[in-house]
Amino acid sequence: METSRATAAMRLSLELARRGVRGSNPLVGAVIIDSAGTILGTGHHRGAGTAHAEADALNRLGTLEKDIARNATMVVNLEPCNHTGRTGPCTGAIIDSGIGNVIFASDDGGTKSGGGAQTLRAAGVNVSNGLLRSEATELNHRWFAARNQGRPFTTLHLAQTLDGRIAAKDGSSQWITSPASLFHAHQVRARVGAIVVGTGTVLADDPRLNARNEHGEPFEHQPRRVVMGLREIPVDAALKADGNYEQVRTRDPHEVLALIASRGIGHVLLEGGASIATAFLAADLVDEIFLYQAPIFLGAGRSSIGDMGIETLAQARTFRLDPLDGEAVRILGPDTLTHLEPAPAGTGRT
Amino acid sequence: METSRATAAMRLSLELARRGVRGSNPLVGAVIIDSAGTILGTGHHRGAGTAHAEADALNRLGTLEKDIARNATMVVNLEPCNHTGRTGPCTGAIIDSGIGNVIFASDDGGTKSGGGAQTLRAAGVNVSNGLLRSEATELNHRWFAARNQGRPFTTLHLAQTLDGRIAAKDGSSQWITSPASLFHAHQVRARVGAIVVGTGTVLADDPRLNARNEHGEPFEHQPRRVVMGLREIPVDAALKADGNYEQVRTRDPHEVLALIASRGIGHVLLEGGASIATAFLAADLVDEIFLYQAPIFLGAGRSSIGDMGIETLAQARTFRLDPLDGEAVRILGPDTLTHLEPAPAGTGRT
Repeated sequence: METSRATAAMRLSLELARRGVRGSNPLVGAVIIDSAGTILGTGHHRGAGTAHAEADALNRLGTLEKDIARNATMVVNLEPCNHTGRTGPCTGAIIDSGIGNVIFASDDGGTKSGGGAQTLRAAGVNVSNGLLRSEATELNHRWFAARNQGRPFTTLHLAQTLDGRIAAKDGSSQWITSPASLFHAHQVRARVGAIVVGTGTVLADDPRLNARNEHGEPFEHQPRRVVMGLREIPVDAALKADGNYEQVRTRDPHEVLALIASRGIGHVLLEGGASIATAFLAADLVDEIFLYQAPIFLGAGRSSIGDMGIETLAQARTFRLDPLDGEAVRILGPDTLTHLEPAPAGTGRT
Repeated sequence: METSRATAAMRLSLELARRGVRGSNPLVGAVIIDSAGTILGTGHHRGAGTAHAEADALNRLGTLEKDIARNATMVVNLEPCNHTGRTGPCTGAIIDSGIGNVIFASDDGGTKSGGGAQTLRAAGVNVSNGLLRSEATELNHRWFAARNQGRPFTTLHLAQTLDGRIAAKDGSSQWITSPASLFHAHQVRARVGAIVVGTGTVLADDPRLNARNEHGEPFEHQPRRVVMGLREIPVDAALKADGNYEQVRTRDPHEVLALIASRGIGHVLLEGGASIATAFLAADLVDEIFLYQAPIFLGAGRSSIGDMGIETLAQARTFRLDPLDGEAVRILGPDTLTHLEPAPAGTGRT
């Protein structure tokens, strides 16, 4: 295999990976090439519960002739997993396919999912790693960070005015953003394992916190509803409608994430209010943001983000536009949606 | 002339008008059709100092044969002007061209520029008005409002964090937004007649307030620099570099605009700080906004918009995305730019 051909295939894997959505699983693309570098098949991961990239590529390709398989190479931006979760291990799928070579970029390193390279080598597969590693690692840098901290991946939902207000002076806040923004927010709810809100939001808005389609009907998959904070919430609160609910009596975001991780949940949506957003941002525990902005100004009222102890501009929490999962900035009815991820260390303004 | 053909031509005029930029002149497009509705020529206005739409269409078309001209119709979304400003009156250009018919949408109604229909009729031109009037009036609704109030058209520049801050707690603010945003802002400076800043901005930042190209060199046209406020500013302030400067000792935005209008200036850029933005927004004196947002959060520090006396959400200042002059939301380097205009009365959320 010429390096340039492998590199081209890895670039394509990364490009395919970027077609996925961020969440409990990393972004992974896979390209199967023959010894001349011709592409035999491609795949990518589409989100929790769907096939991993390697399996997706193999499924689309169908059975390979033995000779072709032996000379083929699976090029993938992350070490194939060694772990049976909602889907089987990719190492097994690769070994079963007879593919003789694997090139990956980033090591997995996970306690459960890692060790794929070793398993593949033990089965006689030629394995090499590190091609375009830095690009591959950057693509999933926050997913790796979350996994290394043993916590779920977090997505922050912010819905505010253009001057960063989430409620007017009198507390009125429904509805700052439009039905189009709410619909997008419900689609995000449908892909997470849990939603976190503060007791203040429950007491003020009594939200149901379920994920609903454009007709207001609940989706089949519903996230767990987690309330964070010390205050009591009413026994008849709408989000207590079923048992898929719990309250964590803390103001510490680390504790909340530890509890959610212990429930086997890998992706959580932080829906508010301001004190939750502030606590998670201050603790650098926000991995992704969907920022909905209504084209209005209030000039007063509650700010979306409270004091994080930042004194000077160089200490600002720095994000970057996230080109994944649709356009980074887009129009939703009268509103705009900005999709952000934390800027990797060293790329900020400081 | 069948109505449907005239309507189609007027729709095209409006579409052409939307290719212009907002400012001291209204957005106008013009379409010249023959008696069968075939388009002979089109034009639109490209901003202060350039040809009006009717003249642009005639210039592009060249001289028409007498018979063709007599049967042709000029379809334009605003009554042709009757006034010699930086360019000659459109009525004269139309009469000279021999075009026998004019259909326009909105009446001009200006004390200087109005009366075009009467002049055209006196010269034997068939004139009708009111076709698609409501759409045409809405397109320039803020320009008409500004003209009727005898004040310049105003563009507000806001450069802030995603949580609506323009400075950190310690006052640091340079630079929240990126060079790409600054470059766009300089292009806007180059098209206005005056820039307004507060004394606070002068004392804090000592800006030059000239319009510079990407190499930092000043453009040929420079806006007048107007400082608003009661405090003294230093004799060696950078914006006092030449005589194209004055201070208006008031906090009343109406007074500032009256002074600028008296200087013959039709378009002003409000560059800050927060108290200026707040005063103009509160007085409903903002006709257009360019909102630059850096992908950072401060959580504290100075807000871009201060208290406007708004108590409840229904009183919010309501804008809408402006599809003119490029995409309404776009990416500028790491930042986003949102282009807004006030929502016409009755289209807001209240």
